[in-house]
Amino acid sequence: MKVVTLGEILLRLTPPFGTPLSDAESLSVRFGGSEANVAVALAGFGEETAHITAFPKNAVGQAAENNLKKFGVDTRFAVRVQGRMGLYYYEQGASLRAGRVVYDRLDSAFSKTPAVAYRLSDALEGARHLHLSGITPALGTNAAELCRIALQEAKERGLTTSFDLNYRADLWSPEEAARAFCALFPYVDLCIASSDGVSLVGVENGGRDPAACRRAAESLKEKYGFSAVALTVRESVSASFNRLSGVLLGKEFSVSPTLSVDIVDRVGGGDAFAAGLIHALLNGFSEADAVAFATACNAYKHTLFGDTMSASEAEIFNVLRGDTRIRR
Amino acid sequence: MKVVTLGEILLRLTPPFGTPLSDAESLSVRFGGSEANVAVALAGFGEETAHITAFPKNAVGQAAENNLKKFGVDTRFAVRVQGRMGLYYYEQGASLRAGRVVYDRLDSAFSKTPAVAYRLSDALEGARHLHLSGITPALGTNAAELCRIALQEAKERGLTTSFDLNYRADLWSPEEAARAFCALFPYVDLCIASSDGVSLVGVENGGRDPAACRRAAESLKEKYGFSAVALTVRESVSASFNRLSGVLLGKEFSVSPTLSVDIVDRVGGGDAFAAGLIHALLNGFSEADAVAFATACNAYKHTLFGDTMSASEAEIFNVLRGDTRIRR
Amino acid sequence: MKVVTLGEILLRLTPPFGTPLSDAESLSVRFGGSEANVAVALAGFGEETAHITAFPKNAVGQAAENNLKKFGVDTRFAVRVQGRMGLYYYEQGASLRAGRVVYDRLDSAFSKTPAVAYRLSDALEGARHLHLSGITPALGTNAAELCRIALQEAKERGLTTSFDLNYRADLWSPEEAARAFCALFPYVDLCIASSDGVSLVGVENGGRDPAACRRAAESLKEKYGFSAVALTVRESVSASFNRLSGVLLGKEFSVSPTLSVDIVDRVGGGDAFAAGLIHALLNGFSEADAVAFATACNAYKHTLFGDTMSASEAEIFNVLRGDTRIRR
Amino acid sequence: MKVVTLGEILLRLTPPFGTPLSDAESLSVRFGGSEANVAVALAGFGEETAHITAFPKNAVGQAAENNLKKFGVDTRFAVRVQGRMGLYYYEQGASLRAGRVVYDRLDSAFSKTPAVAYRLSDALEGARHLHLSGITPALGTNAAELCRIALQEAKERGLTTSFDLNYRADLWSPEEAARAFCALFPYVDLCIASSDGVSLVGVENGGRDPAACRRAAESLKEKYGFSAVALTVRESVSASFNRLSGVLLGKEFSVSPTLSVDIVDRVGGGDAFAAGLIHALLNGFSEADAVAFATACNAYKHTLFGDTMSASEAEIFNVLRGDTRIRR
Amino acid sequence: MKVVTLGEILLRLTPPFGTPLSDAESLSVRFGGSEANVAVALAGFGEETAHITAFPKNAVGQAAENNLKKFGVDTRFAVRVQGRMGLYYYEQGASLRAGRVVYDRLDSAFSKTPAVAYRLSDALEGARHLHLSGITPALGTNAAELCRIALQEAKERGLTTSFDLNYRADLWSPEEAARAFCALFPYVDLCIASSDGVSLVGVENGGRDPAACRRAAESLKEKYGFSAVALTVRESVSASFNRLSGVLLGKEFSVSPTLSVDIVDRVGGGDAFAAGLIHALLNGFSEADAVAFATACNAYKHTLFGDTMSASEAEIFNVLRGDTRIRR
Amino acid sequence: MKVVTLGEILLRLTPPFGTPLSDAESLSVRFGGSEANVAVALAGFGEETAHITAFPKNAVGQAAENNLKKFGVDTRFAVRVQGRMGLYYYEQGASLRAGRVVYDRLDSAFSKTPAVAYRLSDALEGARHLHLSGITPALGTNAAELCRIALQEAKERGLTTSFDLNYRADLWSPEEAARAFCALFPYVDLCIASSDGVSLVGVENGGRDPAACRRAAESLKEKYGFSAVALTVRESVSASFNRLSGVLLGKEFSVSPTLSVDIVDRVGGGDAFAAGLIHALLNGFSEADAVAFATACNAYKHTLFGDTMSASEAEIFNVLRGDTRIRR
Repeated sequence: MKVVTLGEILLRLTPPFGTPLSDAESLSVRFGGSEANVAVALAGFGEETAHITAFPKNAVGQAAENNLKKFGVDTRFAVRVQGRMGLYYYEQGASLRAGRVVYDRLDSAFSKTPAVAYRLSDALEGARHLHLSGITPALGTNAAELCRIALQEAKERGLTTSFDLNYRADLWSPEEAARAFCALFPYVDLCIASSDGVSLVGVENGGRDPAACRRAAESLKEKYGFSAVALTVRESVSASFNRLSGVLLGKEFSVSPTLSVDIVDRVGGGDAFAAGLIHALLNGFSEADAVAFATACNAYKHTLFGDTMSASEAEIFNVLRGDTRIRR
Repeated sequence: MKVVTLGEILLRLTPPFGTPLSDAESLSVRFGGSEANVAVALAGFGEETAHITAFPKNAVGQAAENNLKKFGVDTRFAVRVQGRMGLYYYEQGASLRAGRVVYDRLDSAFSKTPAVAYRLSDALEGARHLHLSGITPALGTNAAELCRIALQEAKERGLTTSFDLNYRADLWSPEEAARAFCALFPYVDLCIASSDGVSLVGVENGGRDPAACRRAAESLKEKYGFSAVALTVRESVSASFNRLSGVLLGKEFSVSPTLSVDIVDRVGGGDAFAAGLIHALLNGFSEADAVAFATACNAYKHTLFGDTMSASEAEIFNVLRGDTRIRR
Repeated sequence: MKVVTLGEILLRLTPPFGTPLSDAESLSVRFGGSEANVAVALAGFGEETAHITAFPKNAVGQAAENNLKKFGVDTRFAVRVQGRMGLYYYEQGASLRAGRVVYDRLDSAFSKTPAVAYRLSDALEGARHLHLSGITPALGTNAAELCRIALQEAKERGLTTSFDLNYRADLWSPEEAARAFCALFPYVDLCIASSDGVSLVGVENGGRDPAACRRAAESLKEKYGFSAVALTVRESVSASFNRLSGVLLGKEFSVSPTLSVDIVDRVGGGDAFAAGLIHALLNGFSEADAVAFATACNAYKHTLFGDTMSASEAEIFNVLRGDTRIRR
Repeated sequence: MKVVTLGEILLRLTPPFGTPLSDAESLSVRFGGSEANVAVALAGFGEETAHITAFPKNAVGQAAENNLKKFGVDTRFAVRVQGRMGLYYYEQGASLRAGRVVYDRLDSAFSKTPAVAYRLSDALEGARHLHLSGITPALGTNAAELCRIALQEAKERGLTTSFDLNYRADLWSPEEAARAFCALFPYVDLCIASSDGVSLVGVENGGRDPAACRRAAESLKEKYGFSAVALTVRESVSASFNRLSGVLLGKEFSVSPTLSVDIVDRVGGGDAFAAGLIHALLNGFSEADAVAFATACNAYKHTLFGDTMSASEAEIFNVLRGDTRIRR
Repeated sequence: MKVVTLGEILLRLTPPFGTPLSDAESLSVRFGGSEANVAVALAGFGEETAHITAFPKNAVGQAAENNLKKFGVDTRFAVRVQGRMGLYYYEQGASLRAGRVVYDRLDSAFSKTPAVAYRLSDALEGARHLHLSGITPALGTNAAELCRIALQEAKERGLTTSFDLNYRADLWSPEEAARAFCALFPYVDLCIASSDGVSLVGVENGGRDPAACRRAAESLKEKYGFSAVALTVRESVSASFNRLSGVLLGKEFSVSPTLSVDIVDRVGGGDAFAAGLIHALLNGFSEADAVAFATACNAYKHTLFGDTMSASEAEIFNVLRGDTRIRR
Repeated sequence: MKVVTLGEILLRLTPPFGTPLSDAESLSVRFGGSEANVAVALAGFGEETAHITAFPKNAVGQAAENNLKKFGVDTRFAVRVQGRMGLYYYEQGASLRAGRVVYDRLDSAFSKTPAVAYRLSDALEGARHLHLSGITPALGTNAAELCRIALQEAKERGLTTSFDLNYRADLWSPEEAARAFCALFPYVDLCIASSDGVSLVGVENGGRDPAACRRAAESLKEKYGFSAVALTVRESVSASFNRLSGVLLGKEFSVSPTLSVDIVDRVGGGDAFAAGLIHALLNGFSEADAVAFATACNAYKHTLFGDTMSASEAEIFNVLRGDTRIRR
């Protein structure tokens, strides 16, 4: 009962906290990618996961693959190709100074690999769920084609599918994104988005108001025929402090508790939310429990350095209980 | 007018902040132990202190001993024995993710050293106060025996004594602990505990309510005949932010101010409280001043990395004045 | 249309966060000096800047000079002399533990260099503004003489001038400082001070009350004939959290918004304020916009490690907009 | 055509180079174990490998498992049990100061796990080769039993087997070791040892003389009926510089080139030799090429920090060609 | 009397010594580029230098520019353009393990900037010498064009010129390189190459034999009409130990002493040689002294981490005197 | 049977290996001083030692004192005074690049403390040996006076005394040093010097020739009436590799073995030699064994980072046996 994810992995280079990128003497190495982050978190919950991607055939690509394997993600369906590793620099924000990402991902090995290079059928064989995000179709025609084929084959094979909008303004225009997303929506069961990212696909922003989020989710569900819609809600009080919640509209409508989080690392929270949600729904949580669990994953991720989390269910439940006493 | 402390010292291994223990590439080295932490803080206040313990005869034991000497704690009454250094891994919490301790202290050199190996009489000769904690009797029959003999001899020699309950659930059951503690109480003058740890010895928890804490302290004092009882009160708002206070019931009942603290390191606050209290009482502070000073020590410790603090009286008074402007 | 600054540069040695200076195994290297910090920030905004100082003729002096050049500050008018680099140790505060500076700057190369050693005329040739601070006259007769000559020549050449009171109690008495400052005031156009530092020169403290700050600024302006007076206002809620604002009395009286800042580094905020103010006034901002911009610089600097900031105007405007979402 | 290895994994804690363990403020984290090191190196060469061990059910055990997975070693046949992670401290030598290991591995989770806890049949199913070392039987009756059963079952299933003597004086006496080894030898095809470690099992040391090594190998082969014997030869010129070679007696007798190596990390060279030899023999290298390849692995490992290497065949061939020019 | 250099600057990312790139958790940040390295070293000798390049308009480009300015290189003639920073990963070799560079420089901002974007005339105005290397024409038509125009204009303005062959096999074929180089040679006065790199342009390798090097230099000089030819000679005993020398054929033929060097960093030695040679020849050193000085620069650079050196003449003379006693 | 040492302690700030001081972003913290280094090494051998010095009354002085206490040196006879901590920057050499010290020790707290501030009688009470070095009289009249009084009182109390010439050219002229040394020699029993440092006091350099060293030692002994003379001999092959030996002329003449050492840290070797010699002579080693032990200490120190060593006798004997195999 495997979950398959598909997407690019980037090398993330982060200067020390409080040091601008322009003045850094060392950079920490992490690897991340929206869909791979989901795979890592799912593996942490004990799900069998496999990630489909293309690794450059060099030591940096090897490092990226090793990183996935370390967290228990199956990389057998990834391909190894000539080319460069996409990367990004991440300057952490603090207080009233916003964090900043400098992308250097153009012409990456992944973006240049044609869809036919992958053994999609092997990867999806016996799987239960496929997860994609809106970053992948933005990476060019190869990647967009790969998304389409993978979603189609997943549906043909009876997998459930999820898609996280994840619009990236540096990669394409809102119009291009909307067109591409809408082409994929027919194959998507669960649609995930940020509450203020839904306007891209013609739905009024949910903002931070649960009722508006409900309307947004209902519009999305109706307009595109999703079986479920989940929205993340974020109040950026400062770069160091956010309030997080989420809503899920499936058979019913559920709102998660709002969690206040002192931020250790701002990146990857949405992916943790997606992973928590997928895990919860695959394992029979109620919808209310599922969105609460997903939101706790979102918050929990913010307390860890790097793009990914790999925690047990028990640790997430502990967050929901609000128990922050030291455990010994 | 020396203070003597007795107990095990552990190597503490801490991954970088924000990195899970399971993903750490380096660990910082600190040494700690409830009673040794008290000794270090007392030495910082200018008290002459000696710590009784057993160091493994290897480079790690040497490191532990050097660490005590560095802070001015006399180690002449420690013994050096074959065996392993007990240790613990400490994953710092952040925000709504709780911190976590993984102990690896079984079969340590200290726990295997019989009471007769120590020169207790030499150590207590000329001393004024002996401090122990409830961790030591939990470490097996050798250590429990050592506690009993040390407390007895201290009382025979006219020292005052203090005992910090410090129940550790990973080491023994509540019932075992209660039995062991009660056997030692007759030799204890000052009993220190957390407000919600007193139920172990048959007294209703004080929680965070001063009146309930007073009742708990009075019950303890009456039931076990202590000359004074001090309780620490902690509100764990999050792993990054706590509110701390304390009460002291001696000749009168005093409540400290409540101090809000952004947490740099969660471990060792209770020991700093004990050290502050002992220092204050040995130096003629009023009871109200003593518990305020002790609580400020507790809070101050939370702003320093590691298990121990070594600050001057002046620095603690500065905390109580609430002056946080940079000093230059 | 160059800005010239003048003053000593110190090596700053900082232990890791949470580690006392007395227990540090490594120290980070930064360079700072009130006026040089202003120059660095101005260069960040694209101003042409030159800094007048004396560097020791050794590798540490070279490092200090390289550091200024790195940020685009012209060092052609600095001299290189035999002698030692002044330095300071900076123990960062946290929460209710105040930060602490240990100075070791006596007999520095700068303080021993006579005013005649500098080519002041060359440095001021073609410049538009000169900035000094009250630290320099405190460094002895050479430095005091240098301040006087530089301000006189600046006024003769028609430059505007600014002076930041910056009283340092470890360097001289309030009486000495007041006498020295008053001797320089006739050459000063823009006077900058902290709201509670003005009593030094015979004006009632402004504290945190805008009305009182207005009265203080008005008194200063009237008493000493400044064309403008700016005061920084700081509420030290804790060593980790401050509230910052500022007032400017020029042709009108303006109060900045109050910015709440989680502190990454407490040093250099006032210099960032000065730089922001000078930049704003030189570039035709309204007075209200200028003091808001300056206050945002003050706050922004607190989010960066080290004494200096080097940010673009756009980044400061972003702070004023309160947008702390991650930018990608 | 999988290779299976079996043995304990230890956490290795290493102070910075040039700093004594007794004075270290941080320790780097690596994981190692003679047999697991072999598995990692084999995986690096592209062999399918699986490692049988017991991981403690805590974050440290998780880290150890993640470390194996990262390098592509299959951990499905490992068990997860209550207990502690064995560990060792490694103080690197330099020049005329010898390196030093402080073990803390008693009562580890692995040593306490009974042989029946493992699914040996599943692990060996379809495998081609089993590798063990003499450390495992030294870890107590559980581990010794596990060795015996594993070797027996391997032979029954038709696997080839290898055994690296690896005598550890801190774990048992030479007599105990000899007895235990001899009991296992009937199931061993390829015996690996250091040239001066063979006296333990009644054969005259080979030292550094090829002829003597040949005699030692011949005696071993004859005495215990091995199909092949390989000996590593080391000249410890200093802790920073060694000369390494090896001999292999199979169908013929081969001596490797002698490689001079500046040592970056002294640990794990023998395991790299074993891995290189197993890889070479499984892949049809000539015996002369096999022992040369194995010796190059030994030397190569010494240039990398940590217990393990993960290099491609091509990199090892490059060592044998003696080409040390930078590759770009 | 300025020296102008022209070429791309790359971000260099280096894992810790002894750690493979595929296993690194942090990367040190340095900047380098063959010609910029020459500029930095020349600035260290007190030469006025300016570097012509294109920086990406982002924080990484800013860091690269700041790095040049720090060492006193004038960046006024550099342009700032949209695009990515080229970079390379550098895995340091050790002993018999060769170092390795993984380039990721395709489609860099520099390579995409057309020659017309630069103000070459302004940059060369008043300059005395222009230095280029064979890397630049390899970066595409823009860069090749830039080389040609710059050399032409330099000759028209009466500057002397130098060109370091620096063939990079990952960028183009030997045939392409030879063709490009030969097109530029008419504008080159001083040709610099490695003794075994000259075969590229139709001359027999000099290898490590001075007589053969002389023949190679003579052939080059004659064939292409250079006024002087310098060859670097390297014996790669191991990745940690090299022997370095050089020859110079100008009016006479000179051979430098051979210097043995324990390698701290393998990159940038040839650039240091070029800088030393240019500095020596511009400052009237004899040819014999010049090639000795250049070789000492080459060796000196190998003792410093990073691509660049910035040392005084006195430090290089000290190397030639062979005085390695600590200076205090 | 205590050994007393006397002298200044300096903060040592060291950039990372391979990084010039002018480019360092962090500095490691160590403390050293010729005589304190001797005390630390002696304490490591189990000698009771006390060090007489003046610590600044601030956190840096506290760190220096803690450092001595950590290694077991008694600091009760040190005084705590207002003033600055002397310090030095140490740029490590490598290969043919010499190491370099930048002193910043003028006007230190120690140099400004008058001799009467110390309780010399208490410190020397019951002691057996006093060790000084030629650095102390160079630090001004206070320190010179302190040396004279301490040596006089030591001789009056019947202690043996040793004096290490340790001429520092940055502190005074050879003539001043010679005059000061000769005034102290009447109170010195054991004179220690480098073989090429003796010309300062009118004796022909011993260089690296044992016979010449013997003549130098004989001249010294005869001329100044020492009971014994020891000379260290160093061949600086490179900054990374030295050959070390020593001679001792007491009742007989002994030459140590010559030890080759790859240098981890160049500072403090002479102090280790002195400590080894004092320990050996106080503990009845033969003169030949003493100078061999002292030379092994010298070499051993070079393998450790920092100014000091703290090793057991057994570790030094191991060096003399030449056994550099890893110990486990």
